[in-house]
Amino acid sequence: MDEKILDYLKRKKDYVSGDHLSQRLGISRQALWRHIQSLKDSGYEIVAVPHIGYKLISSPDRIFASEIASRLNTKSIGRKIYYYDSVSSTMDTALKLGIEGACEGTVVLAESQVKGRGRLGRIWVSHKYKGIYLSLILRPKILPNETAILTLLSAVSICEAIKEKAGLEAKIKWPNDILLHNHKLGGILTELQAEMDEVHFVVIGIGLNVNNDKKSLPDNATSLKEHKKENINRVELLQEILRRLEANYFLFQKKKAAAIIEKWDEHNITLGRRIRVSLHKRHIEGEALDLDIDGGLLVRGDHGLVEKVMAGDVVYCR
Amino acid sequence: MDEKILDYLKRKKDYVSGDHLSQRLGISRQALWRHIQSLKDSGYEIVAVPHIGYKLISSPDRIFASEIASRLNTKSIGRKIYYYDSVSSTMDTALKLGIEGACEGTVVLAESQVKGRGRLGRIWVSHKYKGIYLSLILRPKILPNETAILTLLSAVSICEAIKEKAGLEAKIKWPNDILLHNHKLGGILTELQAEMDEVHFVVIGIGLNVNNDKKSLPDNATSLKEHKKENINRVELLQEILRRLEANYFLFQKKKAAAIIEKWDEHNITLGRRIRVSLHKRHIEGEALDLDIDGGLLVRGDHGLVEKVMAGDVVYCR
Repeated sequence: MDEKILDYLKRKKDYVSGDHLSQRLGISRQALWRHIQSLKDSGYEIVAVPHIGYKLISSPDRIFASEIASRLNTKSIGRKIYYYDSVSSTMDTALKLGIEGACEGTVVLAESQVKGRGRLGRIWVSHKYKGIYLSLILRPKILPNETAILTLLSAVSICEAIKEKAGLEAKIKWPNDILLHNHKLGGILTELQAEMDEVHFVVIGIGLNVNNDKKSLPDNATSLKEHKKENINRVELLQEILRRLEANYFLFQKKKAAAIIEKWDEHNITLGRRIRVSLHKRHIEGEALDLDIDGGLLVRGDHGLVEKVMAGDVVYCR
Repeated sequence: MDEKILDYLKRKKDYVSGDHLSQRLGISRQALWRHIQSLKDSGYEIVAVPHIGYKLISSPDRIFASEIASRLNTKSIGRKIYYYDSVSSTMDTALKLGIEGACEGTVVLAESQVKGRGRLGRIWVSHKYKGIYLSLILRPKILPNETAILTLLSAVSICEAIKEKAGLEAKIKWPNDILLHNHKLGGILTELQAEMDEVHFVVIGIGLNVNNDKKSLPDNATSLKEHKKENINRVELLQEILRRLEANYFLFQKKKAAAIIEKWDEHNITLGRRIRVSLHKRHIEGEALDLDIDGGLLVRGDHGLVEKVMAGDVVYCR
């Protein structure tokens, strides 16, 4: 009911009489008053003028599930949203939901994470109400070794959404970094739960610095705010990310990996460069030649041999 | 304390006076009496003769965590056991425990499963107090595509334990079936939770028909009881399986996959046969040539080409 009231006030953009609202929604004036109080408690600024009615002045800077769901217009991604003010890690929450059978497209959002993580268990710092921290459950009919393409797909979706909503050209550093002017803007973490020949589900984690203050970030990191010099509407950006994720996911299902790699290519700043990839037990130095159809990076080492790596830490050389 | 009392009574194998027991364990006679009652409630048959003491007559046919832990003598596998009379699926319970950080070697045991599952979400029927249904959490430092070897390792461990405790020669049908005289005795389900270049943990599920009655099983299935014509001690068999799993897991860590494949070979009844492997979208018919180092099966198709498959349904031809 809170959502319905909010939706109505948002569309009217002016005072709406309490009588009208309560009739329209089929609730008592008493009940309406209680819902308005609950919305105010959540941070919505609503004025009430006797004999005139209620008016929504402003919405809080929160990515409430109801805000995201409103006019999202997707078919599956974000149709089910779990929102938390704080959570240990959106990844762990989503993994557990996946095991319990959560449907494809389920999204876990958090304003902050106590134990946010990046690749290989590294710490991901979340600034409350500043960034976008989400995990998305997908159930693609693919083999475990075909999962890497979903990281690329997500990176493309983020770049597209940033271009659309902030007008900035974010770039992708293989495998999972989103950069803005060579500083780290965000990252993607893809985890799978699978048996040998069937993926049960994949959880895609996205961490994005949006309105984070420059001074709260490491030297090599940046936020959209730093470049726009103003706060970005996180709700709109998040919605756009979900829409792009869905569009690209449907594209992947229809036209396979090649269509994603083609898009990825437009945003990538890794291919053609001389790089050093650190793997678990060794590293490869050479030229980043191309992407393989499974999303692996083909590197031509100095010995001339071409090797494929599925993930690793990339440093640009010279 | 229940465990300590039990352990003492088991070792004595005769009457132990209440005074002696309560002094020995540092508890009151009143407390001792309550613990004895609790053990009786769990199915332990304990007689109490006034002025003489307590004697353990028999243990219930249950795989209680305390029974398994007693004199198990492993370093990690089974050091932490979760026991359930009934559970939805030991796999799901173990997967959730893994996400919460459960340590390597954690075992989930259930007397029965409501939604036990096999490969590709197929139903696995559990008969209460008759079989062995367990899931084991491992945290090997391997890549996602190296996980299949753990299925082979588990199959070997089960065959070894059956040989030791029941004197029967179980065989392995690639990838995950345990057969006895060509009838299905058990199965292994290996699931992993991973990112692209790191396995977070693996859950190995084992379902084994032990004292199941022939008439409760499908035509193509069998149980150890059917061949031994008597009940098998499930506690001892389960302990042996855990011990063999640990020994083979240590062997794998030390001597890599080759050592496991060598052992697997002794129990396998797939290599050298003409087979038909059903994959998701197609099938391959030909000769089962050999195992690759990652546990994949090399099949020489009728066209002469050798293909590797990582999992699939195998049917013997002719």
